[in-house]
Amino acid sequence: MILSVDLNSEVPIYQQIRDRVVEAIASGELAVGSPLPSTRQLAADLGINFHTVNKAYDLLRREGLLLLNRKNGAVVQRDASSGPPAAHFTEDWTARLRTLLAEAVAQGMGDREALAACESTLARFTVTARGQGEPA
Amino acid sequence: MILSVDLNSEVPIYQQIRDRVVEAIASGELAVGSPLPSTRQLAADLGINFHTVNKAYDLLRREGLLLLNRKNGAVVQRDASSGPPAAHFTEDWTARLRTLLAEAVAQGMGDREALAACESTLARFTVTARGQGEPA
Repeated sequence: MILSVDLNSEVPIYQQIRDRVVEAIASGELAVGSPLPSTRQLAADLGINFHTVNKAYDLLRREGLLLLNRKNGAVVQRDASSGPPAAHFTEDWTARLRTLLAEAVAQGMGDREALAACESTLARFTVTARGQGEPA
Repeated sequence: MILSVDLNSEVPIYQQIRDRVVEAIASGELAVGSPLPSTRQLAADLGINFHTVNKAYDLLRREGLLLLNRKNGAVVQRDASSGPPAAHFTEDWTARLRTLLAEAVAQGMGDREALAACESTLARFTVTARGQGEPA
């Protein structure tokens, strides 16, 4: 996994790391059991403090996506194949989706354009995820 | 507009106020020119500090959705009828959409279910917005 962050972004670095890992899991690039770089390694690669990487990994652990332990480091614990999400996740996610889509509508994006963006983004994840292991 | 916040939520109060206003604009409940309650009034209604309301209104101002001035207070400056969003908005929004949809896929929500959630949320906004001014 090539993980890059934008040091000039308003989005905190730990959040960017978390977001990139979530996207890599969704796209099938990281499957259950995949190891992530150690916090010190990733911090050195990105030129950031290892506490920042720790914060990102801990957030992913609390979300149920990573398993952290002293022996194996950070390992993906959940992906698209792990069964349906918990009810509390779906409820919270739906509320955040509502706010994000409201933002687009309030800013004047047409509903067709917004829906097309949802569709093409989802297609990219699922095509990539399904493509894993198939002949090239 | 009935604006309610959840004091026990992990989402900061100013963010909740901002989100509810965005949703009210998207649903057509607040159109261009609609006045919002004064910061002191809303703070008193919600039982919170008026600096928190100020922070929410200022965020909405920076997003181009509210106009703030001493004479008229906070007034909606932009809604779905104000033309297409700025390119930098669309770029940033698309990146946030990608992360949010990735979260659903990583947590095991099927792509059809995720797309259906997008579709029904958008339909609710646009039906309400279009319903404004039509005969009951």
